[in-house]
Amino acid sequence: MSNYDIKDSKLAEGGRRRIEWAEREMPVLRQIRERFLRERPLAGVRVSGCLHVTAETANLIKTLADGGADVVLTASNPLSTQDDVAASLVSHNEIPVFAIKGEDNVTYYKHLNAALDHKPHVTMDDGADLVSTLHKDRRDLLPQVIGGTEETTTGVIRLRAMAADGALEFPVIAVNDAMTKHFFDNRYGTGQSTLDGIIRATNMLLAGKVFVVAGYGWCGRGLASRARGLGANVIVTEVDPMPALEAVMDGFRVMPMEEAARIGDIFCTVTGDLNVIDKHHFEVMKDGAIVSNSGHFNVEINIPALDAMAVSKSLVRPFVEAYDLKDGRRIHILGEGRLINLASAEGHPASVMDMSFANQALGLEYMVKNGKKLERKVYSVPEEIDREIARIKLLAMGVAIDTLTDEQVRYLNSWQEGT
Amino acid sequence: MSNYDIKDSKLAEGGRRRIEWAEREMPVLRQIRERFLRERPLAGVRVSGCLHVTAETANLIKTLADGGADVVLTASNPLSTQDDVAASLVSHNEIPVFAIKGEDNVTYYKHLNAALDHKPHVTMDDGADLVSTLHKDRRDLLPQVIGGTEETTTGVIRLRAMAADGALEFPVIAVNDAMTKHFFDNRYGTGQSTLDGIIRATNMLLAGKVFVVAGYGWCGRGLASRARGLGANVIVTEVDPMPALEAVMDGFRVMPMEEAARIGDIFCTVTGDLNVIDKHHFEVMKDGAIVSNSGHFNVEINIPALDAMAVSKSLVRPFVEAYDLKDGRRIHILGEGRLINLASAEGHPASVMDMSFANQALGLEYMVKNGKKLERKVYSVPEEIDREIARIKLLAMGVAIDTLTDEQVRYLNSWQEGT
Amino acid sequence: MSNYDIKDSKLAEGGRRRIEWAEREMPVLRQIRERFLRERPLAGVRVSGCLHVTAETANLIKTLADGGADVVLTASNPLSTQDDVAASLVSHNEIPVFAIKGEDNVTYYKHLNAALDHKPHVTMDDGADLVSTLHKDRRDLLPQVIGGTEETTTGVIRLRAMAADGALEFPVIAVNDAMTKHFFDNRYGTGQSTLDGIIRATNMLLAGKVFVVAGYGWCGRGLASRARGLGANVIVTEVDPMPALEAVMDGFRVMPMEEAARIGDIFCTVTGDLNVIDKHHFEVMKDGAIVSNSGHFNVEINIPALDAMAVSKSLVRPFVEAYDLKDGRRIHILGEGRLINLASAEGHPASVMDMSFANQALGLEYMVKNGKKLERKVYSVPEEIDREIARIKLLAMGVAIDTLTDEQVRYLNSWQEGT
Amino acid sequence: MSNYDIKDSKLAEGGRRRIEWAEREMPVLRQIRERFLRERPLAGVRVSGCLHVTAETANLIKTLADGGADVVLTASNPLSTQDDVAASLVSHNEIPVFAIKGEDNVTYYKHLNAALDHKPHVTMDDGADLVSTLHKDRRDLLPQVIGGTEETTTGVIRLRAMAADGALEFPVIAVNDAMTKHFFDNRYGTGQSTLDGIIRATNMLLAGKVFVVAGYGWCGRGLASRARGLGANVIVTEVDPMPALEAVMDGFRVMPMEEAARIGDIFCTVTGDLNVIDKHHFEVMKDGAIVSNSGHFNVEINIPALDAMAVSKSLVRPFVEAYDLKDGRRIHILGEGRLINLASAEGHPASVMDMSFANQALGLEYMVKNGKKLERKVYSVPEEIDREIARIKLLAMGVAIDTLTDEQVRYLNSWQEGT
Repeated sequence: MSNYDIKDSKLAEGGRRRIEWAEREMPVLRQIRERFLRERPLAGVRVSGCLHVTAETANLIKTLADGGADVVLTASNPLSTQDDVAASLVSHNEIPVFAIKGEDNVTYYKHLNAALDHKPHVTMDDGADLVSTLHKDRRDLLPQVIGGTEETTTGVIRLRAMAADGALEFPVIAVNDAMTKHFFDNRYGTGQSTLDGIIRATNMLLAGKVFVVAGYGWCGRGLASRARGLGANVIVTEVDPMPALEAVMDGFRVMPMEEAARIGDIFCTVTGDLNVIDKHHFEVMKDGAIVSNSGHFNVEINIPALDAMAVSKSLVRPFVEAYDLKDGRRIHILGEGRLINLASAEGHPASVMDMSFANQALGLEYMVKNGKKLERKVYSVPEEIDREIARIKLLAMGVAIDTLTDEQVRYLNSWQEGT
Repeated sequence: MSNYDIKDSKLAEGGRRRIEWAEREMPVLRQIRERFLRERPLAGVRVSGCLHVTAETANLIKTLADGGADVVLTASNPLSTQDDVAASLVSHNEIPVFAIKGEDNVTYYKHLNAALDHKPHVTMDDGADLVSTLHKDRRDLLPQVIGGTEETTTGVIRLRAMAADGALEFPVIAVNDAMTKHFFDNRYGTGQSTLDGIIRATNMLLAGKVFVVAGYGWCGRGLASRARGLGANVIVTEVDPMPALEAVMDGFRVMPMEEAARIGDIFCTVTGDLNVIDKHHFEVMKDGAIVSNSGHFNVEINIPALDAMAVSKSLVRPFVEAYDLKDGRRIHILGEGRLINLASAEGHPASVMDMSFANQALGLEYMVKNGKKLERKVYSVPEEIDREIARIKLLAMGVAIDTLTDEQVRYLNSWQEGT
Repeated sequence: MSNYDIKDSKLAEGGRRRIEWAEREMPVLRQIRERFLRERPLAGVRVSGCLHVTAETANLIKTLADGGADVVLTASNPLSTQDDVAASLVSHNEIPVFAIKGEDNVTYYKHLNAALDHKPHVTMDDGADLVSTLHKDRRDLLPQVIGGTEETTTGVIRLRAMAADGALEFPVIAVNDAMTKHFFDNRYGTGQSTLDGIIRATNMLLAGKVFVVAGYGWCGRGLASRARGLGANVIVTEVDPMPALEAVMDGFRVMPMEEAARIGDIFCTVTGDLNVIDKHHFEVMKDGAIVSNSGHFNVEINIPALDAMAVSKSLVRPFVEAYDLKDGRRIHILGEGRLINLASAEGHPASVMDMSFANQALGLEYMVKNGKKLERKVYSVPEEIDREIARIKLLAMGVAIDTLTDEQVRYLNSWQEGT
Repeated sequence: MSNYDIKDSKLAEGGRRRIEWAEREMPVLRQIRERFLRERPLAGVRVSGCLHVTAETANLIKTLADGGADVVLTASNPLSTQDDVAASLVSHNEIPVFAIKGEDNVTYYKHLNAALDHKPHVTMDDGADLVSTLHKDRRDLLPQVIGGTEETTTGVIRLRAMAADGALEFPVIAVNDAMTKHFFDNRYGTGQSTLDGIIRATNMLLAGKVFVVAGYGWCGRGLASRARGLGANVIVTEVDPMPALEAVMDGFRVMPMEEAARIGDIFCTVTGDLNVIDKHHFEVMKDGAIVSNSGHFNVEINIPALDAMAVSKSLVRPFVEAYDLKDGRRIHILGEGRLINLASAEGHPASVMDMSFANQALGLEYMVKNGKKLERKVYSVPEEIDREIARIKLLAMGVAIDTLTDEQVRYLNSWQEGT
């Protein structure tokens, strides 16, 4: 096989071990793979995937391949590739992979286009870069695309904006909308893995620190809750009064970033928006402040503005860049402002990706079956898929639950019994 | 004024003080009342309310009256009336009230019918007993009803079942669906007040106790989180795999009630369903177990079955009934299985009812304006009402939040910027 | 029996039921009582007790009586007496009790002296008022006193000061020093019961409130942890850098009261010191602030200073006094600044008092046996008593633990095995 | 300089950056270093240190050198050395270091002896291996030793056993006994860093996992609290009824290891004892169980027993060894059972080591001044040192606290004011 671009195929063996390790924590995907092997529902389907190239993703890709799909994979972020996993997919599974950790933006887009050269029937996206490039630069490929799937909040926002503009040319399933995705992945996955990333990068004690979380969506509340669980004093910033009020009721301090910037020790953005930490925030931060991002794109922190304010910068630890300002203060940016859980840690643990990727696999199967009947818009994962995934997951964890009795079902459907 | 039925009008002065005390914690409703006084949007509208007669409800009723409405009030639960508040509404505000704490079921329905005798244009319900009686026994009144509002999950379930049967004869706004209602009232209100009720009834230490929460809806998760916050070891039971999985990920043990029944010290049901704690559960409970309910109706615990199992029963403290079983075990039922936060405590604190009742007031205003154009089904509170309530609440709490910059708004609406 | 002073002996039946209810949660004391009944170790010993007259205390008093002691009981706080319990002790157990809830200071000291008229061999104190009065006014009784026991931190501090002055005339066992007392009673008991008292008095939602805890001793950390568990945003004030640092690392904000006073919604002092909330703090508090105390004496809040600042005051709910200040602000004092968990709630739950009072009973037995050999100072509860109580408690809760193997014991005593 | 044994001096530059990074979080040690530079209190004193060779330790060593000491350093654990830090100490500070990550036991003891060849006046130990070797094999050096310091609980237990045997030949200060050490290092440091180690080794999600903590001492409660903070369902095992009871009241499940072994997903021992997880526990564990240790020595897990039960073993990820058992189950041991926070993570964060090492520096200074007057036993850190460290730390964190007023001091020392 020659059609790939990875760092070093000699890393394959280590990658295999990590893929197998992750597999142990992915019982839902395992069940799906077993059925796919029997039923081959994706036989002959060309899939181009643009996802973080991690051990968990490898298990998804292998599941699709076992279902009969002809898959290629490119990275959805220049910093998030696990090179040994990429090597194993190429060497052991003959999956073409285009992804090298730390690649520059030019290479990133070259890889994206290589994945599109595969002439996909279905796209699988994480941030909508693949779909966006397809619509901007490779419109010749559009006719044969049946549909796509999209992993993230950020990507879904972009796709909905495209659909609203009438610009989206095929249906996309918003995997992120599945409850078994965003309830678990965004909240529990992002919560733990973001702190994991920050701690690996800095080795700082969170207890006693003022930790500022920008955004109280599903990711933000996971992060806030886990930071508090590690002893930090958490401040939340928001633009929407509803989640802001929830944050207050959950016991957090809520204030504008302008104020939080003055007192925070560690900052992390999870908003999906840009310049959430901006020039005027850097201007008032304490000496030594740590600033990071766990939102999809590296636009949430205005690093160019900080760059312009700095007299010098230096890498003081891997993934920790110190910006020395004219007034003597030093501000630290983690992982170049890219999502810190992938930059300095290993991304979401396998057990959450299990459910996200079960949604990807089943969503993709659904798209293959039904895509031609669907409109050019963003669809949610069908509820029965979602609930089935939750059921299998509980079973795999050895957790039993109650079942409604006939009497209870009848009661819930009646309206005549009262006080 | 003679048209009312309350316990003792001499209690009015104490009721007034409690109504005023609650008012201090209800800044959103205060703003609405000030506008209603100026605009009189409910002038001439007859309203029949069936709500828990508490200090907070009194502030809602006064708000409607200040808006021009002609209101009567009946209790939505035989045990939840605060007699001094009822007295104050009658004596100081000339609102006809039909409610006596501890009234029997016959009186309860007599009061309900007295409220219907008012020939309402709008109904205001908490559990749908008013609407249900109207549809079953007082159909002559239906033609002049514009619409209604409904406060609870339980009521909304009943009304949706009616609408699905084609039986609902007017539109109803589901106040419970407002985020500023169920996010806050169900979760924070029920969480604290249920434990308050249990502690007042029993004076037991929660730390170190095994506390079983049946149901992990909004109420259940509020209760589970607060019980853990007081040091209990919490077990959750569920019938739906999705919330069950969330409970597991939130760190709780999840198991069937059959198993939980054997190890629990204190039980509380918040499911909206019947016989969630049933005969076969009582059979395996530990000696001394405490069983309570915080769901709307007193059907969640199968008390008749327990009664049949008992050789004797006695009231060992106010709101604590001990059932002595043949095998020597004693099981305690709190507040006759009625919602314990109203039976032995004072219901939701004013600051959460502030938002629920702001939704009631604005929902009712909306219904008066738009009811004739609406279909005979259950409507959600319009989103702009919901968001506005959150905004006022934050303001009143002195919490400022960020505002999107133009650049950020633009970014959120675009789809062309990527990695 | 005529030698007593209580509110109303007709309350006795209700008191009995509450005493029995508490007894169910006091398995350690039950075991001691059973042994006392057999062994009668206190036969002929006159005991004067000055304790909060609650259902739990009644079980202690009955235990001592079953051990052969001749006991009289007076209240250790004018507001903390449960009148029905006092009535039951008198009517059903023939224990002379001198205590009426709400008694004035003159009566309080008259009652104290009535208890001293009993010519005690052993004193049993809660705050050291009995011992202090004995040393100041009743020195004629000193010769026959063998020793005493003291329940609280506050009392122990006073007694240690007396011993340091050479003023203490007999040995006292500091029950409070027992780990099974202060680890559990101060932390878990005070934590829950203080919030219970505040919530019963105010019916306020704690979620989202800024809750200021003055003092981070065992009581303070129990209170801070439970307030956070109910959703409050907790601020801690301290004078000692060590606990202050712990509070920071536990995730709380720590600041001087001067600053906290400006932003707190609810305040509670648990310091054992006076004027912790003082005139200059009231001057900067927000309108509507709630101020309470859960420390032993009502000196922690400078109420006389507030009184002098107020233009009027009024009782707005039971246990809630509103002080209207000249500048229009209103400040609320709960329970006249007396310990709020006893003023408006029922004090510590039985299951914590079980261990405290097991220490009292066993400490008193120890004093009777060994008092004459002891010096005139404050002694800790012997460690074997402490550990035995923990063992019985776990057993009673159905919790089994591991036992060291011989190999492990040997290892722990050796120093030669290393890396 | 030639007298050292490290991995690679070319790693020095990276080490320097990490030492400087840690220094930013060590303000207390910084203040001490500044004074030491002025006063040179350790001039001419030979110090042999046996500590984990980390960036934080490097800052301690530099502080002692700045105080005039002539220091050599050896590792206190074969797996805990940071090779780049060792290189920097040698290259930039001319400190002889004997430590290579992953060295075998023979090399470990060779290094220990090399450090003793320095003929120390003062020993500085972490686990008492240096003192123990000195007493067993190098007794010729004993006469010139003034005294020592010891960092850990484990070491202090060994030294107390030696002192009890009359075997200890010089005084040792138990740094671990300082409140600013064990309250913070054991609880907050071990809590976070142990989970950090487990997550780095496994990349597993803790939410929803059953996490078994063996031992509820200061380390155990830190670990239990943080594991709960990350969403795990925590079980505690203990041998002492007092901490076992506290664990129950803190809301954890407590049970014998025999039972916990059957249901745990992840285990971590922090007991200071041996074979806490033993053959009969492995026999009942679930397939896939993860077993780790964060106690000082690698004896807490009986790995030889597991080895004997296994048909094969393999390294499935760095620091994760899979043991395949005859019955098909697989059990994973992390970091060979050595303290996982040092094996797979970076040990305690700098901000906790700041206080531990401030105690080391001041304890060592105290020993140099007073050692000759002390007896041959284990001493605590003087309380004024402890409190001063807390004061400086708060100051450095920007946290102000209250000061007792004269009136308050007087009150606390009096015993005559009562109710």
